[in-house]
Amino acid sequence: MLVSVISVGNELLNGDTLNTNLAYLGERLADAGVPLHRETCVPDDREAIRAALSHALIDSAAVITIGGLGPTTDDLTRTVVAETLGLALHEDPDVAAAIRAYLARCAVSIPPEAIRLQSLVPAAAQVLPNPNGTAPGLCCQRPGQATVIMLPGPPAEFRPMVDDAVLPRLLQAVPPSLQRPRVVRVAGLAESRVEACVQATLLPLPGLQVAYCAKPGCVTVRLSDPCHRADLLDTAATRLRQAFAALALPPDCLTPADHVAQLLQARGWYLAAAESCTGGLVAAAATDIPGSSAWFAGALVTYSNEWKQTLLGVRQQTLDAHGAVSEAVVREMLAGLRARFGVRAAIAISGIAGPAGATPDKPVGTVCVGVCADAVTTVTRLQFPGNRHSVRERATAMAFVLLRTALLQPPASCPPPVVPLTPSPCCPEPRHVQPVQ
Amino acid sequence: MLVSVISVGNELLNGDTLNTNLAYLGERLADAGVPLHRETCVPDDREAIRAALSHALIDSAAVITIGGLGPTTDDLTRTVVAETLGLALHEDPDVAAAIRAYLARCAVSIPPEAIRLQSLVPAAAQVLPNPNGTAPGLCCQRPGQATVIMLPGPPAEFRPMVDDAVLPRLLQAVPPSLQRPRVVRVAGLAESRVEACVQATLLPLPGLQVAYCAKPGCVTVRLSDPCHRADLLDTAATRLRQAFAALALPPDCLTPADHVAQLLQARGWYLAAAESCTGGLVAAAATDIPGSSAWFAGALVTYSNEWKQTLLGVRQQTLDAHGAVSEAVVREMLAGLRARFGVRAAIAISGIAGPAGATPDKPVGTVCVGVCADAVTTVTRLQFPGNRHSVRERATAMAFVLLRTALLQPPASCPPPVVPLTPSPCCPEPRHVQPVQ
Repeated sequence: MLVSVISVGNELLNGDTLNTNLAYLGERLADAGVPLHRETCVPDDREAIRAALSHALIDSAAVITIGGLGPTTDDLTRTVVAETLGLALHEDPDVAAAIRAYLARCAVSIPPEAIRLQSLVPAAAQVLPNPNGTAPGLCCQRPGQATVIMLPGPPAEFRPMVDDAVLPRLLQAVPPSLQRPRVVRVAGLAESRVEACVQATLLPLPGLQVAYCAKPGCVTVRLSDPCHRADLLDTAATRLRQAFAALALPPDCLTPADHVAQLLQARGWYLAAAESCTGGLVAAAATDIPGSSAWFAGALVTYSNEWKQTLLGVRQQTLDAHGAVSEAVVREMLAGLRARFGVRAAIAISGIAGPAGATPDKPVGTVCVGVCADAVTTVTRLQFPGNRHSVRERATAMAFVLLRTALLQPPASCPPPVVPLTPSPCCPEPRHVQPVQ
Repeated sequence: MLVSVISVGNELLNGDTLNTNLAYLGERLADAGVPLHRETCVPDDREAIRAALSHALIDSAAVITIGGLGPTTDDLTRTVVAETLGLALHEDPDVAAAIRAYLARCAVSIPPEAIRLQSLVPAAAQVLPNPNGTAPGLCCQRPGQATVIMLPGPPAEFRPMVDDAVLPRLLQAVPPSLQRPRVVRVAGLAESRVEACVQATLLPLPGLQVAYCAKPGCVTVRLSDPCHRADLLDTAATRLRQAFAALALPPDCLTPADHVAQLLQARGWYLAAAESCTGGLVAAAATDIPGSSAWFAGALVTYSNEWKQTLLGVRQQTLDAHGAVSEAVVREMLAGLRARFGVRAAIAISGIAGPAGATPDKPVGTVCVGVCADAVTTVTRLQFPGNRHSVRERATAMAFVLLRTALLQPPASCPPPVVPLTPSPCCPEPRHVQPVQ
């Protein structure tokens, strides 16, 4: 079944808004074995919406429009879809009542005309309730023709409607999914090295489709098979996991941070972080995971040297001798976290995110990342490419990659682990200095 | 000039990757008065890329492809574009040398075939250097036909190439921009109230196009005029700024946080933050602004009650009597920040981001936000809709909105400000309890 998306909104094309809705819907559909076929993003323009819809109706079984259902004059989706499908719009008193009830719950009032516009429903369309906003979703199902589903753009409204109303409808039409892709996520290895390892490992299993996606600290490998051979997919995924060994994340972890959370919680350990150039991003990534209070103690964003000294006990002489961005200072930050907060796991980061602050021997992108997992402490000086945003994002990701490695490392006195920490011989060695994307 | 974009990559359609490149390019083009006409996102599939390109070539003066230039087998853009335009590919030794030099700088090696693939250039194409990665950009300019520009997908490579190579090329063809839109950003008012105020204010100036974009804490109003009447646009923007009064951000501020940074720096004040449910997002938003060390002292992510007590001096009896999510605890967090770190501005947040942690009188989305600007302290209990991500994002945005308001508030002993803090009578009053999107 081909599903395509039309995203509507000037704000998506002029840089005001990131299209997080597309990523959310795309992930849900990919997981269900119905990968999105195409997305078209158009401005709040009657003709552009109409052209994109007409084009999508030609080759899609279902078209999902996102946005343009709100109360302002540039919200055109409802009208254009109804016109294009030849359906009259009528005011639905139940929808108007639901909007008024929602507004009352939020103690907000909006002009009556804004309520009227959002209660317009195309003939024979099903109304998809929106418990988190005013405009409901609208589903136009027509026998023998493409289904058109309209959803509001605000993510807090859009996401629950995808899960509660859209997926159940779409998946009715899909067979229980043998074609669901198998996914292996690899931590801390560059994309080209992941591919070399995948190719060496899967060479004896021809006919599989492999797609790669590199994010900071993690490469996702997706295996699919046009012939729906579930056994072959399972075998391939198992072989990849064996080849990548401990570099492969457990299947229920989407990121190295997810795995860190799992490892810490299993041991009953707490993590604390001290951040300079990442300025809260490590803490934000940790607390983005629901239930993080079971393993995340807290973080200190010690942006100034004074805070590093007061809160973490970093010594003036260390700052003078090595500078704030140095392995020595990061070691003292780690020691301060452990001594003052009694945690068994810690992350400390100090670096130059730019654009200012560079010196000849410490260019923009120089970041010292320290991690500590009980007896194992490592401090690594890394050099990241890119701008401020990129350096901060990559440093944050690498902190979790390195902490994960430290957590998997056996204490010196223990026998070697059953699962080796490097990939099998067919795969190249990971090198921490490379710019993992 | 119509410019369209083709984003290539399974990862954009399956939710692995947010299309931040589109937002970046779209903003740059909108600011230059050449708003993007359309974007199409297709998977790593030969036929899908070909179809999107053929479609874009019909109605665009320039087509920019993003992604699919890398070294792995699912990188198809270069080949498909060359085929579609009827251009042969040849290995460019200068490109290969540049790739080797880049790899040497990063101390990384990749397979020789990966270098060869990325050094293929279509006949007569210009090579756009990529100082931050391996694959260069490629520009195919053909007399009388649409220009096709191919750019690599990693944002750290893509962004500098947009600024250094793409914009100068595209803007050569555009007249000095009378059609550049005028932008007014309004802090802390719901979108429908912003629109009501805009309509009341601009009623005497017909013919203008108005577009709205609501983000947490800020609504952007863009004014454009199909007839390019620069004077009319300037008059309209000035009237809007007068109507919104202090709710309008200064023209050089994109967000309430930008304005907070400006206000603090002008006064020589420092900001410190204490975060619970936002878990580092306030600090991350502050330190996302280049030069933040001039006004941002640091932050404490006091996720546990123990940290709130140890680091901020929150009293056990206050926690017992009111719970961690309460105005009383937030007041003590603010007081702790000011007393212990000597800052004149502070933000403190405690809330329930969910999915767990709700109680009957404190549902998910309950957040207490406290701000302090010298003598002015306000603590507000807010109720945000949506999931964990949404609650955290909105709470962070509102913290800067509220701090901005506090910073603009005159001390009690001063005469009233020249610019009133509420919008003019034609506009409705802002209400902090409403769910600002």
